[in-house]
Amino acid sequence: MDDVMVQFLCEDNLRADIFIEGLPGIGQVGKLVAEHMIRELGAEKIAEIHSMYFPPQVFIENDGNVRMANNEVYFCDGPRKIAFLIGDHQSGSNRGHYVLTEKYLDIAERIGVKRIYALGGFGVGHLVDVPRVFSAVNQLALRPQVEEAGGTFEREDPVNGIIGAAGLLLGLGARRNMEGICLMGETSGYIVDPKSAQSVLSVLSRLIGMDVDTRLLNERATEMEQVIAHLQETERLKSDEELRYIG
Amino acid sequence: MDDVMVQFLCEDNLRADIFIEGLPGIGQVGKLVAEHMIRELGAEKIAEIHSMYFPPQVFIENDGNVRMANNEVYFCDGPRKIAFLIGDHQSGSNRGHYVLTEKYLDIAERIGVKRIYALGGFGVGHLVDVPRVFSAVNQLALRPQVEEAGGTFEREDPVNGIIGAAGLLLGLGARRNMEGICLMGETSGYIVDPKSAQSVLSVLSRLIGMDVDTRLLNERATEMEQVIAHLQETERLKSDEELRYIG
Amino acid sequence: MDDVMVQFLCEDNLRADIFIEGLPGIGQVGKLVAEHMIRELGAEKIAEIHSMYFPPQVFIENDGNVRMANNEVYFCDGPRKIAFLIGDHQSGSNRGHYVLTEKYLDIAERIGVKRIYALGGFGVGHLVDVPRVFSAVNQLALRPQVEEAGGTFEREDPVNGIIGAAGLLLGLGARRNMEGICLMGETSGYIVDPKSAQSVLSVLSRLIGMDVDTRLLNERATEMEQVIAHLQETERLKSDEELRYIG
Amino acid sequence: MDDVMVQFLCEDNLRADIFIEGLPGIGQVGKLVAEHMIRELGAEKIAEIHSMYFPPQVFIENDGNVRMANNEVYFCDGPRKIAFLIGDHQSGSNRGHYVLTEKYLDIAERIGVKRIYALGGFGVGHLVDVPRVFSAVNQLALRPQVEEAGGTFEREDPVNGIIGAAGLLLGLGARRNMEGICLMGETSGYIVDPKSAQSVLSVLSRLIGMDVDTRLLNERATEMEQVIAHLQETERLKSDEELRYIG
Repeated sequence: MDDVMVQFLCEDNLRADIFIEGLPGIGQVGKLVAEHMIRELGAEKIAEIHSMYFPPQVFIENDGNVRMANNEVYFCDGPRKIAFLIGDHQSGSNRGHYVLTEKYLDIAERIGVKRIYALGGFGVGHLVDVPRVFSAVNQLALRPQVEEAGGTFEREDPVNGIIGAAGLLLGLGARRNMEGICLMGETSGYIVDPKSAQSVLSVLSRLIGMDVDTRLLNERATEMEQVIAHLQETERLKSDEELRYIG
Repeated sequence: MDDVMVQFLCEDNLRADIFIEGLPGIGQVGKLVAEHMIRELGAEKIAEIHSMYFPPQVFIENDGNVRMANNEVYFCDGPRKIAFLIGDHQSGSNRGHYVLTEKYLDIAERIGVKRIYALGGFGVGHLVDVPRVFSAVNQLALRPQVEEAGGTFEREDPVNGIIGAAGLLLGLGARRNMEGICLMGETSGYIVDPKSAQSVLSVLSRLIGMDVDTRLLNERATEMEQVIAHLQETERLKSDEELRYIG
Repeated sequence: MDDVMVQFLCEDNLRADIFIEGLPGIGQVGKLVAEHMIRELGAEKIAEIHSMYFPPQVFIENDGNVRMANNEVYFCDGPRKIAFLIGDHQSGSNRGHYVLTEKYLDIAERIGVKRIYALGGFGVGHLVDVPRVFSAVNQLALRPQVEEAGGTFEREDPVNGIIGAAGLLLGLGARRNMEGICLMGETSGYIVDPKSAQSVLSVLSRLIGMDVDTRLLNERATEMEQVIAHLQETERLKSDEELRYIG
Repeated sequence: MDDVMVQFLCEDNLRADIFIEGLPGIGQVGKLVAEHMIRELGAEKIAEIHSMYFPPQVFIENDGNVRMANNEVYFCDGPRKIAFLIGDHQSGSNRGHYVLTEKYLDIAERIGVKRIYALGGFGVGHLVDVPRVFSAVNQLALRPQVEEAGGTFEREDPVNGIIGAAGLLLGLGARRNMEGICLMGETSGYIVDPKSAQSVLSVLSRLIGMDVDTRLLNERATEMEQVIAHLQETERLKSDEELRYIG
């Protein structure tokens, strides 16, 4: 077994212009967006990626069948040809991040990708009403269109960097002359955040010029808001009660 | 020295249908079962596995002789031809789990193995009266026979995955077209658990259609129950005494 | 991608006698000195170093453009030809320190370097009024000139060793017959320390026989002293107030 | 640079029968014995070992010169030809222990070694009046002569294993048909222990049939006993004083 094994399930002549990465990360924001798009657009799996840099683990599916931890590439053959990278894991080691990202770029190159969108969350440590979409690019010329689509390049805190696959896809992608745009939805960092995912999806949709039905994502966001409201109410009642004891 | 070194002690034409893994793990359940079967069936050692992924350590035997940490393959030449994988260690690193499991599968392939049984424990955090045998397969077609033999595919908790050699033997084994069945005995996770091993052995015996004398395992289970009962009685007396002080 | 990738931006016939290392470290002393010299002497970038031993990270520049974590070599084509090694990171692993240092030495050899100055800080755990410059050499014959230039070889504490690139540049450099001098500015270890950097620059200037304008470094040192004085005053007021409460 | 680099300083036709390992370890017992013998027997350095598995570090000698962390082989050309392995470090990783030990055995093989003595300490957690020398062998036939020389194969605690170079020299040495004897001096594990080293040296001297002047080691042991006695007296006075306050 090689350190990374890519198994293609598609014919050789597949071509995609856009590569969208949504691997696990803060608030699962990127993962939510990419998985939502795959479902809505009916994208199909074209490759599986196994690696010694993933945990030595199988998952047990509901039917009792096991499935190896892996990452996957999906392909959407619509008006826009899009490849998606989603999966169970990012690398467990520094070295693995580099090795895996190079493999992701090999796949992207193989199918003719010109532009990469790396999706993620940006943790701010508190709940956010209208999540902004912090952005970064690997060619300055890309900045205007990102701003036009609603992404921001301002930052409250000094955002020092982007860690993991999202960052390296832009950095190492630049060396292969691929355009790279990173969209990071503002998120608390404490919860899986479909609301932040909505913001990212909204910017991304404008950037790729495609409408994606957001109903399911909206529902998940509403559910999550109800969960949070319920938790906050419980907290409030508890603290009222404590005050009563004190008073 | 290679990363993994397999030293065969047998002739080339050895053939086994079944490969049973019982490496160290939760409650030592798999280890207890495999070692018990090796003893009862009079299996003989056919290979030694040394690896840089094992701790840099020798054990001192009772006679003062040292023995390198290793894993071993045993072979039972009875009505059913069975290979057993037991040993001192699982890998100390993620990568090692992958590399070692590939070597285990190389051995299994070399001797013609068609089906792998990966044995282990499943920790539930409390003592269990009648340990269930949680099961997983790497081909859905295997599920009915496991259920018939008494294994269960229900789960109280969401069992997320199987970590280490047991999981990878199923996952990587599937890619070599080997059938894989994982049997995990319910166990507290706090003690070496021969009672859980009894449950696993009972399901396994039915699956492989072989009666294995379980007297020695029963004795160990009875001993362990007496140890636990004694510990619980001591706890009870201690807490009675504390109550007396308070009262 | 190789473990370490060096990308030269210069012609092949570049020649430098001196190699000055100022990578991140205690008090950022070496980094401050090297970056100050690069700015004052108008040195130009001649190589970029990327490595899997650096964190898997990109930095976001103020304009929103990303930049991969890297180290860089600068070249000063003045009366003295000097190469500078600065950058974002030291290695994240023991092995990486060795591999990267060998690459740094390859670069130094390629451009004809005869002598290496490794700059750093030496943490003493308290603020220092007149930072000494603790020194070490990789050939005893170099000691007199270092002492003449104001470096000291005395030590209050037993300084056991020099860890990371600075130490290995001297140790591995000796095996390539390169002279190596390590200058470590006394520093608290708690703050970025331009004052300690002044001391190191002063010794280094005499050693290489070059005047470097230190105005900017002096300004930073003055600023830092004001910050420290302000912090100390705040502390004093706070403790006075506490005394008043008690009294 | 290779992972491990051995630099020989001797001619090719050097021959030694015995290889004595005294690398750093518990109580520095093995190191004390080997360094004492090297000094007393006037052994000379014949090889230096550098490795990426050692910390990335140089030591600063008293004269200000740096020295890379390394291990060294010494050779004693007396009535008995003996090679000694001493040094600054054991490996920092599991893998490194295996790789380095194979290199040590390569050296031993190159100079014709038939028998290895691996020296170390065995920590018991309390001060010991007459340290025993716990022993292990890699061929049962070696046991009688070790017992005759005063080594013991009894154990109070279950000694599970020998970790690091000492253990692997016996384990991996057996596979090269080299005899291996491990002598572990009983020691508290809290201090550098010349007294335990005396015990080990005494057994070793009988085994190799050589008298080694132990005066210097005795002096160090006496000094250490005075240090301990002083510490114990200080402790006693302190606790007396505390009792006085209470009383």
